[in-house]
Amino acid sequence: MSRRFNAKSLAKLAALLGTLSLAVAAPPAAQAETTVDIINAAPASDWHTISQDNLLYMTILGKDGLPKQIIIELAPELAPQTVAQIRSFAHHKLWDNTDIYRVDDNYVAQFGVMDKDDNYLKPLPFGTNMHLAQEFTRPAAGLSFVALQDKEPYSDVVGLSGNFPVAIKDGQAFMPHCYGVVGVSRGMPNDNYTASDLYVMIGQPARHLDRQITATGRVIEGIEHLAVLPRGGDDMGFYDNPKDNIKILAIRLGSDLPISKQIQFEALDTKSATFAKVLDKRRNRKLTTDDWFVAEFVPHLDVCYVQPKIRRKAG
Amino acid sequence: MSRRFNAKSLAKLAALLGTLSLAVAAPPAAQAETTVDIINAAPASDWHTISQDNLLYMTILGKDGLPKQIIIELAPELAPQTVAQIRSFAHHKLWDNTDIYRVDDNYVAQFGVMDKDDNYLKPLPFGTNMHLAQEFTRPAAGLSFVALQDKEPYSDVVGLSGNFPVAIKDGQAFMPHCYGVVGVSRGMPNDNYTASDLYVMIGQPARHLDRQITATGRVIEGIEHLAVLPRGGDDMGFYDNPKDNIKILAIRLGSDLPISKQIQFEALDTKSATFAKVLDKRRNRKLTTDDWFVAEFVPHLDVCYVQPKIRRKAG
Repeated sequence: MSRRFNAKSLAKLAALLGTLSLAVAAPPAAQAETTVDIINAAPASDWHTISQDNLLYMTILGKDGLPKQIIIELAPELAPQTVAQIRSFAHHKLWDNTDIYRVDDNYVAQFGVMDKDDNYLKPLPFGTNMHLAQEFTRPAAGLSFVALQDKEPYSDVVGLSGNFPVAIKDGQAFMPHCYGVVGVSRGMPNDNYTASDLYVMIGQPARHLDRQITATGRVIEGIEHLAVLPRGGDDMGFYDNPKDNIKILAIRLGSDLPISKQIQFEALDTKSATFAKVLDKRRNRKLTTDDWFVAEFVPHLDVCYVQPKIRRKAG
Repeated sequence: MSRRFNAKSLAKLAALLGTLSLAVAAPPAAQAETTVDIINAAPASDWHTISQDNLLYMTILGKDGLPKQIIIELAPELAPQTVAQIRSFAHHKLWDNTDIYRVDDNYVAQFGVMDKDDNYLKPLPFGTNMHLAQEFTRPAAGLSFVALQDKEPYSDVVGLSGNFPVAIKDGQAFMPHCYGVVGVSRGMPNDNYTASDLYVMIGQPARHLDRQITATGRVIEGIEHLAVLPRGGDDMGFYDNPKDNIKILAIRLGSDLPISKQIQFEALDTKSATFAKVLDKRRNRKLTTDDWFVAEFVPHLDVCYVQPKIRRKAG
């Protein structure tokens, strides 16, 4: 909603410096350190490469007829059995040529191999665990976790585990249903459960799903390719006509790909002092004289608003 | 993420009743009262028709080449000067044949008549207030308001004013930046300010915008037509090439339309006992024996998760 915020700030600075051309404006030496400055100053040791064992490469056929790639980071610490089965499904190309069959506005995009009556439209690979553990939560003890100071009603403490938002309640840890979170759709609690069908959150946080279902990963690139998909007109966002379904061309595990097809991502260690500084800056926004904002901020970070810093590695 | 939740619940019930056919299953008499039941039982006096003076009919050209309609309810109690100018702009057809020029993923869709350098691409109507009051907040005193019991860090109290989410902090009321909220884009705080350019929230709540900008309405129908628009590739989601902009065919005030083109909406009075019951049900979800959910819920309603009940009037 801000119009050209950055451009305008620079323009104001340029005016102060007595030059009208942005192109020749002096660097904004007097300005406060930005988040970008903080990140750029991080030592190399603050970054770690994300394992290809934890990356799903999802390629869909966009409505414009072109393939689109979505990259999901899996969370084996939070849902180990589920992640193992998802890796196996990707290895066996289970999801190739299947469909995204449900897109519910401000809620989820859902895909996989089941129809609405819980029939599998494709055979599952030999060796599939048909009664997978439902990993809705896990003990907080033993989990790598960085707590945030910010309190919320849904849990006792929020924070991050690796690159994932995590909340802890009554000693059990779980991933809150924030934008981009990936989980496993299920029927009734005592149904067979295989992780053959997944959903991705494409709207506002749906915290009522926390601890009710297995959250197993998070989209780290390309979420917009899911967010723009046409919404289904049927009950709960299912497409009225299977012809409208969105085709999934392939879902592959990074470590099953040739190195030439892998994309190397690195994440700023969420346990690093650099990341703490980024969060602190975001939590304690300050008004400055050259600032678009006018009202004092409440020093609070919502766990769903904390975005780990992940980037493609250079070169 | 739930697969056929309703169908499955019914199927289970049908199984209990000893019948295999959903088509002949007895009505679920033993089930608890649902939100739909509560709403259906509301007396007619709980519903009020939304004034056409407060409805904007926005028609855009979708990527499929077909027109799409988005209906916005304006909030004159929260931003009276801004709403008056928006009505005037719609009356003068200012936005016809203009563009949505920015769609930023998980954030905003923005449109209007300004370019990135703050030049007006169209003349504003004669009589336009070029220095509109910036109605970021208003005194809570005198505002029609229903408080919720739910606490949050961003304000002293949250609730509803008419069909709008409202929060109050230090005696000042404002609309939180929830999904579907419509506001007025602006440059720096001391810039000219006309409400010629508007934004719609299409992602997670952006509460850092609260009290920093004028929120002036909320989409009550058709938000999905904005949410599916291609994201802009330029900085902050602006379209790289103006050719990619989304065409706005028309924006009209309901009361400027012939009655045959008006859509009559009615809203469940947010001050009614019925609405309180709906909220209470949503806040205090209970686990039942025939329930998809398994974990106890935290009895908390986020102000952005409260959706006023608005429907097209029958007939």
